[in-house]
Amino acid sequence: MPKRKPLMGILGGLGPMASAYFYELITAHTKAERDQDHIDIILSSRSSTPDRTAFITGESDDSPLPFMVQDAKRLEAYGADAIVIPCNTAHYFIDEVRKSVSVPVPSIIEETAAHLKRAGVKKAGILATVGTVSSHSYQTKLEGVGLACDVPHEREQRWLMELIYDDVKAGKEADLDKFFAVVEHMKNKGCDRMILGCTELSVINRSMGGREELTDSLEVLANVAIKLCGHETVGFSPEFDLI
Amino acid sequence: MPKRKPLMGILGGLGPMASAYFYELITAHTKAERDQDHIDIILSSRSSTPDRTAFITGESDDSPLPFMVQDAKRLEAYGADAIVIPCNTAHYFIDEVRKSVSVPVPSIIEETAAHLKRAGVKKAGILATVGTVSSHSYQTKLEGVGLACDVPHEREQRWLMELIYDDVKAGKEADLDKFFAVVEHMKNKGCDRMILGCTELSVINRSMGGREELTDSLEVLANVAIKLCGHETVGFSPEFDLI
Repeated sequence: MPKRKPLMGILGGLGPMASAYFYELITAHTKAERDQDHIDIILSSRSSTPDRTAFITGESDDSPLPFMVQDAKRLEAYGADAIVIPCNTAHYFIDEVRKSVSVPVPSIIEETAAHLKRAGVKKAGILATVGTVSSHSYQTKLEGVGLACDVPHEREQRWLMELIYDDVKAGKEADLDKFFAVVEHMKNKGCDRMILGCTELSVINRSMGGREELTDSLEVLANVAIKLCGHETVGFSPEFDLI
Repeated sequence: MPKRKPLMGILGGLGPMASAYFYELITAHTKAERDQDHIDIILSSRSSTPDRTAFITGESDDSPLPFMVQDAKRLEAYGADAIVIPCNTAHYFIDEVRKSVSVPVPSIIEETAAHLKRAGVKKAGILATVGTVSSHSYQTKLEGVGLACDVPHEREQRWLMELIYDDVKAGKEADLDKFFAVVEHMKNKGCDRMILGCTELSVINRSMGGREELTDSLEVLANVAIKLCGHETVGFSPEFDLI
């Protein structure tokens, strides 16, 4: 019978392109010479899960929580030893998801806050959905580890939502001028590091290579997932090894 | 309670980068304006599954079959309505996998042969692993639909194995000169279409955009998976709509 290796559960599809990129990030950053050196994964891509931001902001009564809880339970029943959720906005529901299973559910937001603390960041700029920003998920966790933070003004926040919903989630090219205008805006507000706190922004970052002024929350979670399975990483910036 | 949508099972990790690309192909080619327009997927990335070619050629006694059967059963138990395997070499085991579950398991090789027949191809060049070539998986299915086919000479077949194992599976850049030398070699043998019949070759093809002379078996399987879930595709070449 097949041997038992740690199995990483991914509660994904929120959205699917971000989950595909997350799976690719894990694969690209696991130290491996052959297929069998990689980690074992069970990934649920439940794209039909209702929109997180629309529910959090009250625009919709259709809650994603029953979908997420059902998925978490199914992943645990499948044999997952831990479950990660490659979606920042979904952190809003993490307490309920954690209560529904007995395996660890590391949070992309808690892990990113801890990462920035270790990296010596002073003031973090939060680039995320209205759902994430209005629920203060990042602000609470960053302040919890003693880091200052700030969020974009209304116009720049609207640009982020256009990038996330009208570009990436709709399968279109992202408007990079708009993206960098928001980054500059946050630097002008005194932030020394900008968090890509929405996995659709990670998809935009994908084509740009690593920039020191940006920390991709999806890379932080991939680093955690690989190490939780007892594997070494490769190709991340040195601050990822402070964990 | 969450509504029930068709759930596509992916028996993956053979290898993981090819599965990540397959998941991305499905996402990129599903007609969608928002997350919820995508298909629901459950993907097992069982990278620890023993090497398929090594077992088929007798180099190793470590069979991938128990892993694949266990995965197929688990995916069915999870709720998968169909199971696809984004690995050509693994087609060798498909009869046993099909016997182990009651849901359909479309074969990447049977679907690719049917696709080339519909597209009016005359003679197909098979670019695949030694495991796939020596088991005559493609030859049998192509001849079964009335298509001529050919395989590379020993030297060019060795180049393919280097591209697959020493480059893609090892996480390195692929040697494109070597790849195109094999394509030219097959054209010189009279092939009017070359099958990318190994998902690691699909990963190489990824960066090159579509070339009319190549048919990517992974794109064929993605097309089948999307349509099996009752969704429309977008961005494939017109011959993908003949299905």
